[in-house]
Amino acid sequence: MPPTARTTVRRHAERARYDTETVHAILDEALVCHIGFAIDGRPWVFPTTFARIDDRLYIHGAAGNFGLKTLAGSGAEACVTVTLLDGLVLAKSAFHHSMNYRSVMLFGRVTAVTDEAEKRQALDAIVDHMVPGRSADTRPPTAQELRATLVVRLDIAEASAKVREGDPIEDPADLDLPHWTGVIPIRLSRDEARPAGTLHV
Amino acid sequence: MPPTARTTVRRHAERARYDTETVHAILDEALVCHIGFAIDGRPWVFPTTFARIDDRLYIHGAAGNFGLKTLAGSGAEACVTVTLLDGLVLAKSAFHHSMNYRSVMLFGRVTAVTDEAEKRQALDAIVDHMVPGRSADTRPPTAQELRATLVVRLDIAEASAKVREGDPIEDPADLDLPHWTGVIPIRLSRDEARPAGTLHV
Repeated sequence: MPPTARTTVRRHAERARYDTETVHAILDEALVCHIGFAIDGRPWVFPTTFARIDDRLYIHGAAGNFGLKTLAGSGAEACVTVTLLDGLVLAKSAFHHSMNYRSVMLFGRVTAVTDEAEKRQALDAIVDHMVPGRSADTRPPTAQELRATLVVRLDIAEASAKVREGDPIEDPADLDLPHWTGVIPIRLSRDEARPAGTLHV
Repeated sequence: MPPTARTTVRRHAERARYDTETVHAILDEALVCHIGFAIDGRPWVFPTTFARIDDRLYIHGAAGNFGLKTLAGSGAEACVTVTLLDGLVLAKSAFHHSMNYRSVMLFGRVTAVTDEAEKRQALDAIVDHMVPGRSADTRPPTAQELRATLVVRLDIAEASAKVREGDPIEDPADLDLPHWTGVIPIRLSRDEARPAGTLHV
């Protein structure tokens, strides 16, 4: 993806990734994104689930969802950021403490999806993003549920990724200090599934 | 915390929490926040680490950090959102699929911290937020490192939390459908620490 003024990583440019494969992989692994936009100059950042289909990002909410509805109606630009935390990086110095992460920042205008087939496909993708294959093992949305759901699309055209990995940076003068250094790996783990009290089968 | 127009939860108001204790607990558990703001009307959302001291939130970056520097210099408002994902909620219907989460949304203007003692205290808190007590077991920042670091403060005055927990909602008509329902618990786990290649002791 060609970097633009907004997607060019300025700080630690060596951590930037502009290839579609990296951007898509981060989007596909993350379960939550943070979508930010300004209404009357005032900023909002909402956390929400999402899904990617090809080069399109889909976000859904209730049809009356204040943020999404206002955003889709205004044609204002949005910034969607996705962050995967991979590790805590402990250095000899407080200054060089850091985190390992993979993040994507994506800019664009969202549009409400009105085509029913695309809307159903997007909602399936959002369910499958949580648990692959799950959309085929649930009751699909009724016409009324579809009307009650707002789905918006954002083209993945202006995006970049940033990745930090590996050991801490150290000042050579610090190397003999008696502090432990290294990485504490962090990951999002899924524990054993807990059946609902309402489970009948 | 008294809810304002911005912090009043509109969607699923029963999930809103306005008490300081809940807001602080979510902030203290989360390792990353997403800070959003508009520059010339265009939105940005940056992921970053942070720390809380009493009713103040601190964020740091390089002194030349584009986003933070612009934000602190402009006096523009920011929205800081913190999200802890607790579970994937699988219902009989695609429509009632959901997530369990705890989130905080916080609004305000950031100010650059210029007092050296406050700046050191904030940086210690950021290191201790990663690993409690760690700031006492590292080399503290030099005067030059302090100058190279921008620390901004945001008062935790206009904030609310939103919490979803527990089983899926089900339509009564769906209860006998043959789909598994329940919650897949999600948590951020720390794996065994991996010493750096540069570790001398």
